[in-house]
Amino acid sequence: MKSAKTILFYKTRKARPMLTYSFAQIGKKPLYEALYGFIREDIRTGTIKAGERLPSRRALAAQLGISAITVEGAYSQLIAEGYCHAVERRGIFASKLAAAPLRSADPPAPRAQTRPLRFRYDFATGNVRPEDFPFDTWRRLLRRIQNERAEEILSPVPAQGALVLREAIATHLAAFRGLSVAPENILVGAGSDQLTLLLPALLGRERTYCVEDPGYGRTRRAYEASGVRCVPCPLDEAGVRPEAVRQAGGGILHISPAHHFPTGLIMPISRRYELLAWASEQEGRYILEDDYDSELRMTGRMIPTLMSIDAAGRVLYMNTFTKTLTPTIRVSYLVLPNSLAARFREKLGFLSSPVPSFEQYTLAAFIAEGYLEKHINRMRSKYRRRRERLLAVLKADPLRGRLEIQEQGAGLHFLLRLHTEKSDEALATALAAASIRMTPLSAYYARGGREAEHTFVMNYTALDPALLTEDLATRLASCL
Amino acid sequence: MKSAKTILFYKTRKARPMLTYSFAQIGKKPLYEALYGFIREDIRTGTIKAGERLPSRRALAAQLGISAITVEGAYSQLIAEGYCHAVERRGIFASKLAAAPLRSADPPAPRAQTRPLRFRYDFATGNVRPEDFPFDTWRRLLRRIQNERAEEILSPVPAQGALVLREAIATHLAAFRGLSVAPENILVGAGSDQLTLLLPALLGRERTYCVEDPGYGRTRRAYEASGVRCVPCPLDEAGVRPEAVRQAGGGILHISPAHHFPTGLIMPISRRYELLAWASEQEGRYILEDDYDSELRMTGRMIPTLMSIDAAGRVLYMNTFTKTLTPTIRVSYLVLPNSLAARFREKLGFLSSPVPSFEQYTLAAFIAEGYLEKHINRMRSKYRRRRERLLAVLKADPLRGRLEIQEQGAGLHFLLRLHTEKSDEALATALAAASIRMTPLSAYYARGGREAEHTFVMNYTALDPALLTEDLATRLASCL
Repeated sequence: MKSAKTILFYKTRKARPMLTYSFAQIGKKPLYEALYGFIREDIRTGTIKAGERLPSRRALAAQLGISAITVEGAYSQLIAEGYCHAVERRGIFASKLAAAPLRSADPPAPRAQTRPLRFRYDFATGNVRPEDFPFDTWRRLLRRIQNERAEEILSPVPAQGALVLREAIATHLAAFRGLSVAPENILVGAGSDQLTLLLPALLGRERTYCVEDPGYGRTRRAYEASGVRCVPCPLDEAGVRPEAVRQAGGGILHISPAHHFPTGLIMPISRRYELLAWASEQEGRYILEDDYDSELRMTGRMIPTLMSIDAAGRVLYMNTFTKTLTPTIRVSYLVLPNSLAARFREKLGFLSSPVPSFEQYTLAAFIAEGYLEKHINRMRSKYRRRRERLLAVLKADPLRGRLEIQEQGAGLHFLLRLHTEKSDEALATALAAASIRMTPLSAYYARGGREAEHTFVMNYTALDPALLTEDLATRLASCL
Repeated sequence: MKSAKTILFYKTRKARPMLTYSFAQIGKKPLYEALYGFIREDIRTGTIKAGERLPSRRALAAQLGISAITVEGAYSQLIAEGYCHAVERRGIFASKLAAAPLRSADPPAPRAQTRPLRFRYDFATGNVRPEDFPFDTWRRLLRRIQNERAEEILSPVPAQGALVLREAIATHLAAFRGLSVAPENILVGAGSDQLTLLLPALLGRERTYCVEDPGYGRTRRAYEASGVRCVPCPLDEAGVRPEAVRQAGGGILHISPAHHFPTGLIMPISRRYELLAWASEQEGRYILEDDYDSELRMTGRMIPTLMSIDAAGRVLYMNTFTKTLTPTIRVSYLVLPNSLAARFREKLGFLSSPVPSFEQYTLAAFIAEGYLEKHINRMRSKYRRRRERLLAVLKADPLRGRLEIQEQGAGLHFLLRLHTEKSDEALATALAAASIRMTPLSAYYARGGREAEHTFVMNYTALDPALLTEDLATRLASCL
């Protein structure tokens, strides 16, 4: 862990208080730095004792055959670091150093991080393929911004994010989600995990945070990491039940009503009103609406947001550019009700925005100039074709009749239930051997999940369309 | 806050259960979407009652003179959103909706955020001037990375940050700070505020976090926002006193020993050993060494790090590219002792890295290919000249003898003490009128700070060198 370059030196000493060092083997190090190192070691080891006076600059310079300025440089550094101190008109003295703590064991070095295995058919990632990211447009916009707004992008942006980006997001939300929000209500963050981590600082740490079970496990872990009580609430066919939230003593409820992850469930309007009624019952109750992939819904009209029917200012809306652009751009945002937006500015407005201004300004232009809309439309068609192609492979021989597809929400993933007698463990082994990676639905349950057996969450955005052939079906069939 | 585009429509109704709508004024909206809107409003308003059966697809299509597929589209969407439900072999029925919560007041819209005032002479920001950021190199490296590593930069990076960046940072630390660390011990974060916010999740929330008083106020506020007890500890001429930390019951101590902000104090070696001894006394005590601007020290040799003399694994080292590159790049990092690096992976390894991969990979190349070193050397000379020029203006007429300069640490700021009878409030008014912005030292005290009167913290990196003329001195003199 720690070092301190070993300093090679020769040292001979005749008589005190004259210090005698040899500079024969100091290499390319400046003279003053070598001298500083010699004297520092002598003080550390007690060769020069605490309180001992060092020779004057001139005397030491003459003694060593170097310039007084060199000695001055070494002495200044020793004084700056506290190895010596100057006493006016009396000279420079070695300081008293506290004893160094005993070396105790910092546990052995951690194992090296291993690269994840690569699978031929990987349904476990929601990555974006290189040909699906608009690199050229992005680069062109970034270049323009660096040329035209250099001063702006080098100046700190407000805690809520750059105004141009919040304006662009407001326009996007109006067009894509029918939400009319003010830029003052938007908070830009470095990904949904980070926003989730921050929420207890805004909504309070004494409250219980309820999440969906099954659900996106990182949401729960992020709440737990931020030090609050987090309770997974079971779902029925309409989503989280208000009674489950009441029983848990929930104050905050985090849900994805437009397209539940991972089941794809769309929360019906009646349950939405029930949950809004729950939130309105008591001061300080809030619903976090996580709308992570709604823009890429494949069929029918968009599902309206919960926030749009919230009359009481109890819904926080969260969305991300992870699905519409790429997970690695790390831009998510919250839309806050007025009261919480004001509270954010008061309590957390001192923070630096965590998102680099290059991303904020480029993304703002990307949205404002219509590239995001075009990109989303293009990706919807692309992903729809990729999905249909995959479904065709799964429904044809040799898999015909040996599985079931649940694609309720028709977003960027669906559920696949395999007809098999094998246990999920045995299946996992067989799948890995066939170079197929699929995450079992049970992995998303906080408790139980037995009803999820033989069911897998299928992400297909990262898949090479050319690979969607009978080979996949044959391999998968061999696992059943 | 909420909207829902007003839907213009004519509606006439003759007899139940046949619905009759006119599509004359729906504009460009698809037919199915208009029909969905009509029926949804009828269910919401109770015109169609809960439990009422809707006409069959074929019957309604014939009635309205539209295709059955259009009716199918509208019905699917209504079912997806839960306004209706299908009962097998019996048809489609309007669902029962819970009552909408009463509209309660979400407090009035927050005030629009105002742009900060601009000052001719602004000593309050540590911004980077556009000509001082290496845009061309940055853009070239980003372009190369997007071309050559497209798949990598679109794949999620580990919670600790991209391995190439951590390797580059390790090399940089060895060269610039004499610290030998493994990439496995580095954690890349989205700025120092964000890393500070995260620390209690790693080090524990039951501990008391001590910070320096005076000190960087955002550190304290970030600890408080993350829900832990935070105590500002007064400094003596060597920095924080171990007794002050003991009295506060401190478990974690956050300091900047190489160049204290804002006083510029360099912590002497004896105090360093005293604090290391304090940390070693009890399990779980840690020192956070905030090394925010050490690479840009203007005089003498670098001040060695506290971590390099920590034998017990009790020091966390934090640094940032805010000063060496730009605050808006939002990349900071921690070096963790082995035990804490392992704990991070176990407890927080599930998090997404908050820094966009574009920044991570570009910065990695920027460091690894030697551009950062060149840039730092160039900026050291530039800033040194800027500093000298500013000091010359301040020391010459008409300010000669009317102020005092304290530049202990010789980093990117220094302290200016004005000889004046005016109160700090009166001074602030006069300075603003002269278009000069300087932050009073007292603003950095958590308690007291009377000894700081008439003293100001002078940041000069953002200053236009051409402005460093007698005009500044004349204006400043007029304020005294």
